[in-house]
Amino acid sequence: MARRETATGPGSRALVVDLIRSSGPISRVELTEATGLTQPSISNIVRRLIDDGVVRETGATIATGGKPRTLLTINSRAVFAIGIQLGFENAVCIATDTTGGVFGRQLFDGAGSGEPQQVVERIAADYRGFLTGLGIDETRVAGLSIVTPGPIDLAQGLVIGPPSMRQWVDFPLRDALAELVSVPVLVDNDSAASALGEFWSRQISRESTYACIYMGSGIGAGIVTGGALYRGASSNPAEIGHISIDAAGVECFCGNRGCLERYAAPPAVVEAGRADPELNERLGLDSDTERSFDAIARAAIQGQPRALEMIESSARQMAMATLSFVNLFDVDRIDLAGWGFAIAGSIYAREIRAALEQRAFARRAHGVAVELSSNPRDTAAVGAAALILQSSLAPGHGPSMRR
Amino acid sequence: MARRETATGPGSRALVVDLIRSSGPISRVELTEATGLTQPSISNIVRRLIDDGVVRETGATIATGGKPRTLLTINSRAVFAIGIQLGFENAVCIATDTTGGVFGRQLFDGAGSGEPQQVVERIAADYRGFLTGLGIDETRVAGLSIVTPGPIDLAQGLVIGPPSMRQWVDFPLRDALAELVSVPVLVDNDSAASALGEFWSRQISRESTYACIYMGSGIGAGIVTGGALYRGASSNPAEIGHISIDAAGVECFCGNRGCLERYAAPPAVVEAGRADPELNERLGLDSDTERSFDAIARAAIQGQPRALEMIESSARQMAMATLSFVNLFDVDRIDLAGWGFAIAGSIYAREIRAALEQRAFARRAHGVAVELSSNPRDTAAVGAAALILQSSLAPGHGPSMRR
Repeated sequence: MARRETATGPGSRALVVDLIRSSGPISRVELTEATGLTQPSISNIVRRLIDDGVVRETGATIATGGKPRTLLTINSRAVFAIGIQLGFENAVCIATDTTGGVFGRQLFDGAGSGEPQQVVERIAADYRGFLTGLGIDETRVAGLSIVTPGPIDLAQGLVIGPPSMRQWVDFPLRDALAELVSVPVLVDNDSAASALGEFWSRQISRESTYACIYMGSGIGAGIVTGGALYRGASSNPAEIGHISIDAAGVECFCGNRGCLERYAAPPAVVEAGRADPELNERLGLDSDTERSFDAIARAAIQGQPRALEMIESSARQMAMATLSFVNLFDVDRIDLAGWGFAIAGSIYAREIRAALEQRAFARRAHGVAVELSSNPRDTAAVGAAALILQSSLAPGHGPSMRR
Repeated sequence: MARRETATGPGSRALVVDLIRSSGPISRVELTEATGLTQPSISNIVRRLIDDGVVRETGATIATGGKPRTLLTINSRAVFAIGIQLGFENAVCIATDTTGGVFGRQLFDGAGSGEPQQVVERIAADYRGFLTGLGIDETRVAGLSIVTPGPIDLAQGLVIGPPSMRQWVDFPLRDALAELVSVPVLVDNDSAASALGEFWSRQISRESTYACIYMGSGIGAGIVTGGALYRGASSNPAEIGHISIDAAGVECFCGNRGCLERYAAPPAVVEAGRADPELNERLGLDSDTERSFDAIARAAIQGQPRALEMIESSARQMAMATLSFVNLFDVDRIDLAGWGFAIAGSIYAREIRAALEQRAFARRAHGVAVELSSNPRDTAAVGAAALILQSSLAPGHGPSMRR
């Protein structure tokens, strides 16, 4: 989805917002100097940002000898963004203000709770209730972003896979939801959203080549380089869960064999746990993958040998694939996010760090920092809201919205 | 190496050159419109490009009712760029004009022909002889770029690996060569150079997410997205040869196990060939990897079963790793370049195409075109020269030059 940038294109709007956000109150003249754009371009962009409620004049001015300069700042509570991470068992819904700060959170039922059309209708109703509860009028919502595991069709707003979402294949998720709400809707990949959310909330440097590995029922990742998400040809990149770690391994829904997530993701770990009668009974494992994986992860952290062995095995396989991943993307920082890392993330981080320190191709050129998300269960939904902020700030970039 | 772009930064210079190159003769006013930059910015950039000999006025003007507009064009023969692909056995040296067209070619002795300082002295002498033979005065050379297999230290202009280059580790290649020639010198990765060279010479769209897989004694790749090389944190990305295809596999010099290139690259294929007494004798295999691999590849193309089996095995392993590679970079086009693909590239292309069509993660979202370089043995050297053109056109981007 790369496109040529021109000084008056949507990239300039994003750059201006980014400068206002990062520099604090700033004048139009300073923006002109910092961007190299013309004064009329800056005036136009700023006027539209004020009209859209994204930016406001602070009221303060600075005197510079000439005409006093009015200062601009981000209008944090004028507009809200809604992000929903649609999982199989439940959906996390987050409202953020314009700066990306979390303003409200609620759990909805997930994609597995009914036929797609029913689920979408319930989400729309839950969303309206959520706004009411927060006292947010829908006119102040910039948009609603719903993120799911890939592959996705970003342009059409469709979900293509994975198998847990089988009934959703080719269901027009974006358009069906847009029919039921009064705000623009977009659909994107949960791992990409997660990367953008972590990048924003942790204020990672734009100089960084940053990866966020996301483990939910599958394993994905997002890359941020030069301050922007790496999109690839179809916004389906960074599928670390579909690195093959065994050419003769088990078949994966994606068509390939030996994919990492068939061995290391929570469903595989829970399946192994349920096959162990003693562990199965002691931890009360069942068909709720998230709750069961949490139980195994908790037991591992408490040092129960069999559970620890299973989590460590998953972590070693993850570390193996992360080596290949790092040898391809040459990142300097990785954060681990998603509910799969919520309890035993430190075991994964330890295995990944050890592998990268000893075996990464470019380890003599630079190290790779590996850290845990501070909010692993919500990061995809927070990132989904960040996608709305980015889209409404810089229309034309990223996924297409349906109004 | 991502950095924030501003309208007056080096990115603008590259954009202006790119527009002049792709649009043919164009006026300053049209450049102002196409870029959104101010007239003074365009005038400054154009004046510097004319001073540097990159752009010239055509002499023609167009009348538009107002002041007649002078047209600008790329000055193809005013400046030359030199690219050297330094391999173990030999080095390919290419001179290109400002448009990237090949003006001259010569083979030098490679990195294995002596101590690093001796080799560099011989390269400097060969380079001077090469210029004399072509009738190019060194004052018209924009720079010399020398590319090698990674890992590299781009900022220092050092080679870190691979083991065939062991004596070169930490040898200050860029600075040693810069002492002996009168032009700026840069060092970069041969696969990255190759990708840039193919991208330029094939006029791949900037909308494409493009990969060039490079097979020489190792296997690497380069990615071009949005018209620019994907650099990662240290310009050591896209190391497809160091995707592990077998966690319990053989150790690789990089520190990892089961790396693709230990099974599929020419040295591994030649080693297997030499272990087969009948094949070894019939094809006259020896320690010259390139010549021996060519002999096996030629026999495979001619349908000799044992040779075909070996090349197909290499191609299948390559296809396996390419699946993981595509699942990470989400590319829409792959070209195969480097001497490893010069003879039996079609076998590799067939295996890779089949794997991607049946097993790529995002195959329902889009296909991936797989094509052969038209000039596989020279592509890294041509790309090295393209790096010089890019650096001299847009200083501050990419590897740092030593003058």
